[in-house]
Amino acid sequence: MKRNVHVSTAVIRRLPRYYRQLSELQESGTVRISSSALGKSMGLTASQIRQDLFCFGEFGQQGYGYKVDSLKEEIGEILGISRGHTIIVLGTGNLGRAIIENFKFSSNGFRMLAAFDVDPAVVGTEIAGVPVYHADSLEDFLREKPASVGMLTVPIAAAQEMGDRLVAAGVKGIWNFTNYEISFPKDEVVVESVHFSDSLLTLSYLISQREPMDQETQNQKEEKEP
Amino acid sequence: MKRNVHVSTAVIRRLPRYYRQLSELQESGTVRISSSALGKSMGLTASQIRQDLFCFGEFGQQGYGYKVDSLKEEIGEILGISRGHTIIVLGTGNLGRAIIENFKFSSNGFRMLAAFDVDPAVVGTEIAGVPVYHADSLEDFLREKPASVGMLTVPIAAAQEMGDRLVAAGVKGIWNFTNYEISFPKDEVVVESVHFSDSLLTLSYLISQREPMDQETQNQKEEKEP
Repeated sequence: MKRNVHVSTAVIRRLPRYYRQLSELQESGTVRISSSALGKSMGLTASQIRQDLFCFGEFGQQGYGYKVDSLKEEIGEILGISRGHTIIVLGTGNLGRAIIENFKFSSNGFRMLAAFDVDPAVVGTEIAGVPVYHADSLEDFLREKPASVGMLTVPIAAAQEMGDRLVAAGVKGIWNFTNYEISFPKDEVVVESVHFSDSLLTLSYLISQREPMDQETQNQKEEKEP
Repeated sequence: MKRNVHVSTAVIRRLPRYYRQLSELQESGTVRISSSALGKSMGLTASQIRQDLFCFGEFGQQGYGYKVDSLKEEIGEILGISRGHTIIVLGTGNLGRAIIENFKFSSNGFRMLAAFDVDPAVVGTEIAGVPVYHADSLEDFLREKPASVGMLTVPIAAAQEMGDRLVAAGVKGIWNFTNYEISFPKDEVVVESVHFSDSLLTLSYLISQREPMDQETQNQKEEKEP
């Protein structure tokens, strides 16, 4: 497998989609798939698919297509699914709880170790089998059981502070749901943020492009222009 | 403002980040900012910033930089924030509830009309002031009060069916949190999905790239290669 080739961010962003699509194909009993059929199901061209997968080595066979299970396994390997990654959750409000209860961490190669909060009503309880500890014990816990990733579902005001504590305690990645652009000295940690507002504003943009502006707004626009 | 220029998906995806960053700058009292300072705060180069914003017209002034409030306003306009978009929520489990309670829809230009569920324990109640109706009444409701967007936080098994009902009832966009790749005939509706697993797998990839593989895994890899 080629590991030293430069892989663009756009390709990296598509890898999880390939993995998800191939998992669905596998579940539906599909054994092999052509690059054009795979592309169609993902809104990409066959040539795009071949280019993307070429970055990581030769998976397909001319005239035969891709073997779903081995391609899925290879992409999973590239994504680090068998690395034994572990994760802890900071903040067990509705969002933290929803993700702990519903998200399939193990299907994504992550083992959930524990959750942390400051609310006496939840500290000492379990959420879907995950123990909830007081945030004060975070550093002690991580000394005993290092975690690869800390998931941040704390209020925005606590985002940077809890992020700093996670980094100081040695986590390698932060999965940030706080809608706050936390920042750290370069290379200290990898931050992946799920910004709900970016997603909704993208949707807002796309639907706005499809609907004509009403006449009044249109007129205001024209007046502004030179 | 130039409206007919082709704008790449990558630029569109960055617009909400600009909007978010400019909102934070505005709140902190910053009046104007250079493209290099704006770029630095977003991990982009000054030239990238200038290119992006050039797609939508001339906002900056040589040697002066950008006026934070007017640039924010213009980008908000492009994103459709003043279009009076409306939204309804399908599914009031933990995730739906978390988003209704915590997400600032109005700051993103959306007015929340109602939520729908089938659980008798929540139908007829309110969540953070938002009325919850039975899913059976979805079509009747939308005939009275059309919504721009339907947010899907239903279980995965109900994703496509509820999506189809939303489209048939005339929504223009679907904000999909079901981790299911819902699909519709092209151009019928805009779908924007928040796939938590894509985000976590990207993080998994990025941290895997930083840590050396352990020796055993490395050996297995090498044996596989010709």
